[in-house]
Amino acid sequence: MRGIVAQNHALLPVDGMQLADRISMIQDNRFRLVRAATLALSEPLSPEDYVVQSMPDASPTKWHLAHTTWFFEEFVLQHAVPGYKFHDDQFRYLFNSYYNTVGPMHSRPHRGLLSRPTVEQVLAYRARIDERMKVLLQREDLSPEILDVITLGLNHEQQHQELLLTDLKHLFSCNPLLPAYVRESATPLRSSPALSFKSFDGGLIEIGHEGDEFSFDNERPRHRTYTTAFHLANRAITNGEYLEFVRAGGYENPVHWLSDGWATVQREGWKRPIYWSASLDAEFTLTGLRGLNPHSPVCHLSYYEADAFAHWAGARLPSEAEWELAANEAPVRGNFVENRRWHPEPASSDNSLLQMFGDVWEWTQSAYAPYPGFKPAKGALGEYNGKFMVNQLVLRGGSCATPASHIRASYRNFFSPAARWQFTGLRLARDV
Amino acid sequence: MRGIVAQNHALLPVDGMQLADRISMIQDNRFRLVRAATLALSEPLSPEDYVVQSMPDASPTKWHLAHTTWFFEEFVLQHAVPGYKFHDDQFRYLFNSYYNTVGPMHSRPHRGLLSRPTVEQVLAYRARIDERMKVLLQREDLSPEILDVITLGLNHEQQHQELLLTDLKHLFSCNPLLPAYVRESATPLRSSPALSFKSFDGGLIEIGHEGDEFSFDNERPRHRTYTTAFHLANRAITNGEYLEFVRAGGYENPVHWLSDGWATVQREGWKRPIYWSASLDAEFTLTGLRGLNPHSPVCHLSYYEADAFAHWAGARLPSEAEWELAANEAPVRGNFVENRRWHPEPASSDNSLLQMFGDVWEWTQSAYAPYPGFKPAKGALGEYNGKFMVNQLVLRGGSCATPASHIRASYRNFFSPAARWQFTGLRLARDV
Amino acid sequence: MRGIVAQNHALLPVDGMQLADRISMIQDNRFRLVRAATLALSEPLSPEDYVVQSMPDASPTKWHLAHTTWFFEEFVLQHAVPGYKFHDDQFRYLFNSYYNTVGPMHSRPHRGLLSRPTVEQVLAYRARIDERMKVLLQREDLSPEILDVITLGLNHEQQHQELLLTDLKHLFSCNPLLPAYVRESATPLRSSPALSFKSFDGGLIEIGHEGDEFSFDNERPRHRTYTTAFHLANRAITNGEYLEFVRAGGYENPVHWLSDGWATVQREGWKRPIYWSASLDAEFTLTGLRGLNPHSPVCHLSYYEADAFAHWAGARLPSEAEWELAANEAPVRGNFVENRRWHPEPASSDNSLLQMFGDVWEWTQSAYAPYPGFKPAKGALGEYNGKFMVNQLVLRGGSCATPASHIRASYRNFFSPAARWQFTGLRLARDV
Amino acid sequence: MRGIVAQNHALLPVDGMQLADRISMIQDNRFRLVRAATLALSEPLSPEDYVVQSMPDASPTKWHLAHTTWFFEEFVLQHAVPGYKFHDDQFRYLFNSYYNTVGPMHSRPHRGLLSRPTVEQVLAYRARIDERMKVLLQREDLSPEILDVITLGLNHEQQHQELLLTDLKHLFSCNPLLPAYVRESATPLRSSPALSFKSFDGGLIEIGHEGDEFSFDNERPRHRTYTTAFHLANRAITNGEYLEFVRAGGYENPVHWLSDGWATVQREGWKRPIYWSASLDAEFTLTGLRGLNPHSPVCHLSYYEADAFAHWAGARLPSEAEWELAANEAPVRGNFVENRRWHPEPASSDNSLLQMFGDVWEWTQSAYAPYPGFKPAKGALGEYNGKFMVNQLVLRGGSCATPASHIRASYRNFFSPAARWQFTGLRLARDV
Repeated sequence: MRGIVAQNHALLPVDGMQLADRISMIQDNRFRLVRAATLALSEPLSPEDYVVQSMPDASPTKWHLAHTTWFFEEFVLQHAVPGYKFHDDQFRYLFNSYYNTVGPMHSRPHRGLLSRPTVEQVLAYRARIDERMKVLLQREDLSPEILDVITLGLNHEQQHQELLLTDLKHLFSCNPLLPAYVRESATPLRSSPALSFKSFDGGLIEIGHEGDEFSFDNERPRHRTYTTAFHLANRAITNGEYLEFVRAGGYENPVHWLSDGWATVQREGWKRPIYWSASLDAEFTLTGLRGLNPHSPVCHLSYYEADAFAHWAGARLPSEAEWELAANEAPVRGNFVENRRWHPEPASSDNSLLQMFGDVWEWTQSAYAPYPGFKPAKGALGEYNGKFMVNQLVLRGGSCATPASHIRASYRNFFSPAARWQFTGLRLARDV
Repeated sequence: MRGIVAQNHALLPVDGMQLADRISMIQDNRFRLVRAATLALSEPLSPEDYVVQSMPDASPTKWHLAHTTWFFEEFVLQHAVPGYKFHDDQFRYLFNSYYNTVGPMHSRPHRGLLSRPTVEQVLAYRARIDERMKVLLQREDLSPEILDVITLGLNHEQQHQELLLTDLKHLFSCNPLLPAYVRESATPLRSSPALSFKSFDGGLIEIGHEGDEFSFDNERPRHRTYTTAFHLANRAITNGEYLEFVRAGGYENPVHWLSDGWATVQREGWKRPIYWSASLDAEFTLTGLRGLNPHSPVCHLSYYEADAFAHWAGARLPSEAEWELAANEAPVRGNFVENRRWHPEPASSDNSLLQMFGDVWEWTQSAYAPYPGFKPAKGALGEYNGKFMVNQLVLRGGSCATPASHIRASYRNFFSPAARWQFTGLRLARDV
Repeated sequence: MRGIVAQNHALLPVDGMQLADRISMIQDNRFRLVRAATLALSEPLSPEDYVVQSMPDASPTKWHLAHTTWFFEEFVLQHAVPGYKFHDDQFRYLFNSYYNTVGPMHSRPHRGLLSRPTVEQVLAYRARIDERMKVLLQREDLSPEILDVITLGLNHEQQHQELLLTDLKHLFSCNPLLPAYVRESATPLRSSPALSFKSFDGGLIEIGHEGDEFSFDNERPRHRTYTTAFHLANRAITNGEYLEFVRAGGYENPVHWLSDGWATVQREGWKRPIYWSASLDAEFTLTGLRGLNPHSPVCHLSYYEADAFAHWAGARLPSEAEWELAANEAPVRGNFVENRRWHPEPASSDNSLLQMFGDVWEWTQSAYAPYPGFKPAKGALGEYNGKFMVNQLVLRGGSCATPASHIRASYRNFFSPAARWQFTGLRLARDV
Repeated sequence: MRGIVAQNHALLPVDGMQLADRISMIQDNRFRLVRAATLALSEPLSPEDYVVQSMPDASPTKWHLAHTTWFFEEFVLQHAVPGYKFHDDQFRYLFNSYYNTVGPMHSRPHRGLLSRPTVEQVLAYRARIDERMKVLLQREDLSPEILDVITLGLNHEQQHQELLLTDLKHLFSCNPLLPAYVRESATPLRSSPALSFKSFDGGLIEIGHEGDEFSFDNERPRHRTYTTAFHLANRAITNGEYLEFVRAGGYENPVHWLSDGWATVQREGWKRPIYWSASLDAEFTLTGLRGLNPHSPVCHLSYYEADAFAHWAGARLPSEAEWELAANEAPVRGNFVENRRWHPEPASSDNSLLQMFGDVWEWTQSAYAPYPGFKPAKGALGEYNGKFMVNQLVLRGGSCATPASHIRASYRNFFSPAARWQFTGLRLARDV
């Protein structure tokens, strides 16, 4: 009875309903909400927008819609429903992302070649599986294991909600017409508070997730680690601060850069953050091209850029342990996808540690690695996280494209150091 | 009064209409027919199919629809209509294919990233330009130069009609669902006639186009060339004959291949024609996967494959002069796109020289080069053909995807020797 | 007076020599020994062998000889000798490896294009700089800073001694003649002891280098870290054990592999360790092709292969903290380059923790990252280590190609996870 | 008795020697001369220079020395000497260039990885095979077929003499030290004569080789072809004339270029001829960097550059038939390799049609294709020329690196249109 139930306990009605009824109601409710949120994100699109893959790392919207559905067929329905018949056997191949254990899969860089199934067919696929899941969720005898997988499936879908947005943003950025995903929402006019540092004592601390609430396996087990005292910045680095780095020739001077970072700068011809205009006064956003707000967090930085900025600024990136230690003090509030702002915003001054959650994912200096005692799940779902634990860096805190209910202090996101298309920024740290 | 008029003279009514009226009627008629034919070809598609680019050589349907329209804006309307205002200035960039003279252009390999403008917007663009062209075509004072460019634009559009089909076929072939462009039409059950050779004397002959009828500049000037006597096969090589080559290990033995051809076979892992099944008993067509008909012409061969087959068969490919000499004896009839068969078909036995037109383009051994005295057009339209005269081989005769009114004996098509996605086959020749 | 002096204090004679005399004697002695060792390694080569670069990661022998000499010109002589004139100004460009701070450099992947300067000219360059260094080392007024850089230069040269051997081995492995660097030396016939695990308590420990002895900056500062209890294998994994993994289909089953590892296996067509024969019964070594000794440590594994083997074996790789904790118990003895065996050898049974030093570098699961409080050196030498701290994994313990005086428990070697051309193997660890 | 004998008939002594004796003397003489010329070319090199391959199209000197020797083992000795035992069986693999018929071969782009066999070993190989050939050439019963192959082998070796020089030049040009192959020889100070055009009537002419003298198979059969009247320039285009094209922005304006040429210019960043300095006032030569002589023929042009220049100059390149027709009037004299000038030189004014032979190979507009009735040799030697007849253009006339006895009016050289490392220039033609 872990997973969904635990995660939703605050919602549990206290009246005389049967426990099973209450559970199924909640299950069904959360399932419907998450699935509906995905569809809502694709609403502004025309059918053509669902199809294109702008780079191997990104996937078409249609693929996200189908793959998140495939997850429930492959990992839930076929196991929980006796004699289950797949909606379309070819979808098992087309919409498997990377689970070798369950079978072969369509090549990732070729997801954009699939003009068929059409959007309409994919939506019908979603509707059909939602129907079947609804029936399943009303059963009283669901095992805890199945409930756990469903919860995982919903968290998985939330991850794809964020990817759907970042992938679309990249696609639109490749189009000389610079289409807007939605028309601009109001942006707060506030200035960002002055940059300052807060001190932390460190010591022998514990990090990682524990308890019944859902977490990904990579957040576990909670374990001891030793951290020396450190300083952490009160907020994320802003466009204005990053602009100084650019203007100071940051992209022309190898001394600030990791060797692989400098090689990337030269090979790719990087001169500024990916979505900034050459004139350095505008940036492409999900609401179209906008003036560069110096008070907003800089975003779409690779790890290489974040690290080079920190070096230039005489500071460094925090470790994930430092970040998590600090984040435990901060409320899980911020500019998330539900805000419908579609972009990071200037920090407000209501807390001494600002923007720990939402706005931009914050690069840490920690390589993505198994926690001591990490055990991936048995079977195919063991491929979810563990096999990516090399060549990536940990990011923390969620972004303006993350669902609010998806994030927590122990959450470990990870990307390769050259990745720029996520809402990724940085917060400085310093040795004491 | 060349161009359209001349091309349509057979249709000229003999009654008392004013000449100008008759011309404009015909002009308008032919314009509407060609433009409508393009739209008719895209009718079976869903919006998603219009967008995707399956390889750099191919273009999305949407792009074909827009580019052929751009041609009339760029080369006709802006020059013929005083104070002409472009439908959308960005379209000048997006839908320019390769005319450096008129300005910069969107990168060819990135045509598939343009989810916008949408199909609907492109169709509106077509409708608006058709409207403007209709007005223009009703003017009595159109200069011969403008009429010539309009005629060129219509022939250009016919070329894109064929490309639209071959590009779609390639796209669908990349999809594991193997979608059909249309459901299968009836195929004639006839057997191909036995392969035989017809003798030609050669000598000092003339090839190339002359007269008022439209031709591309690369077909001119008509000029003398010397050809020794030769034999030419009565029909195209069939699937059955090519299958013997495959089964005899043709793709494993370098001795049959040009050096660049063999390097391509090894680098690309070629083992059979591109759309054949690994089991060698089926081929992918615009009507879906079909049993391999041994009597139908083999198609989608690269020059390398056509040349290797000819070598294996103890023969050679004809030169374009040989082909044209022979074609002058054959009627311009055959299995063209208007047949709506969407695939080459077995030769029928009603002529001693079969399939010279339609079914499959026939590779010649002639490099695509300027005819003696060739003069490309002045200005941007000089880029139409001349700048491609290197690294390509000439093909002759049109295919099942070519409009009947588009082909003639002097017509020179050209592709690079590794290209396989066109309806390309071969006819054998032999020295006497 | 740190650096060279401290490192050699055991050798200090106790008699009445003047301190300065003794220091210079020792300095000069160690300098000559290290420099001579490099030349000795290149002795078996013909001039042709010095020139070729078999892959971008490897360098020609000639380049190693010149670059290690360049180091003393660039970082010592020009600063310590007033009015110093460089041997050849172009050498500053040609033999700079990656120090952006001191100026531009020849492109790394093109080091193999330099047939000039000839070997003879490079040897003359070495002799000339040795001469100048000898003069310098006899001066009594050398600053501690200069002495430190000289010590660094000698340790740097020792690193290149190992690279010279591994780069040559790779070069010879690319030659169908499979040349031997030297003729085979006797190999001990002993069997490796049974694999067993030793337990360690862990806890809040300290790792890293401290004290006056030389270390690289990346080994500092010594700092606290927390490690839970763990088991560590008594010896390195052998060819025989790895062969079981290969025979069990280890290279065909993605379930054992990190995602990037599996992608590499497929892209590169890996089927076994790089220098093993396809028949799995021989391996290419510096002494030519030899029968695969099942008792010798497996070597030339990438991190991906080491990690996949550990996964298959139900174990894991140790962290670098675990490794260093254990290594503190082991003597710094082993099969080093001075043995002139040129290959790892079966463990002997004279200690409970075998082969911690020598034979093969052992992959750890630790990403190469700055230690807490790490400060790179000022100026150009700050580029020595720090800028590589991403996308690499730490290796420990040295190999059969490492000079004995070069290694210690805190030593951190690092390579990217796909690198296979070093003498790299593995030792298993397990959670308690 | 064709081949060598015929080719040397002018040398036949008229006295009473036995015919067989005279033949063997001549055979042996020519064999020794050609073989010695190859060695003479490699004399200025240090051993390191023999090894390196600077690009896939080029080969190391050592490889040229060995491959030309391999030719005599593979195609002569093993067939002519009963029970012949190869010098080294592995050399059959290492030094086969592209003859699939005789067996597998070492990968061309990896020729530069072979530090072994050493230069000394290769020279020993040459000496040993020369010895065996000497014995063979003294036999009285050599069949005409064997004599023909020997003659082919000597012509083959002469081709490699030229390649040896151009490959070395490319290698040295990649070295920032810009080594000279030899020290500068005196250059004539004369000015080039004014550019003028000579008229030719054309008509039904014959081109190609006939008779007993040696020619490559691609020069045969002599055949009829029709050529309209044309003008041909009196000399090759000079550096000074080409400089005007460069200064006029020739490399920035797509209008002059073939489409594939322009793509190459942009992809490769071409801004001038490959060996010109960025300052446009010097060029790298086999005698080192020299001032750009405006009167010398421009060389090291790709076909794309030659064609673009001709277009810019309002002219065109000649066809190979036009060139050959004109060349029949010119003596086979010029600046060949025996001059030891190592570079093209200003035309002298002693003839109305200058520089038809020697100085620079002249690009023609003719694609390299089989002559009508072309029959490649039987067996492996049929691979010599025929399989390259696609994607290449014909060059005529020889260069300053061609042996004088190797060239003739019917000689067809061929390279791909982007190749720049040969001594390639151009002569203009014009329609009448």
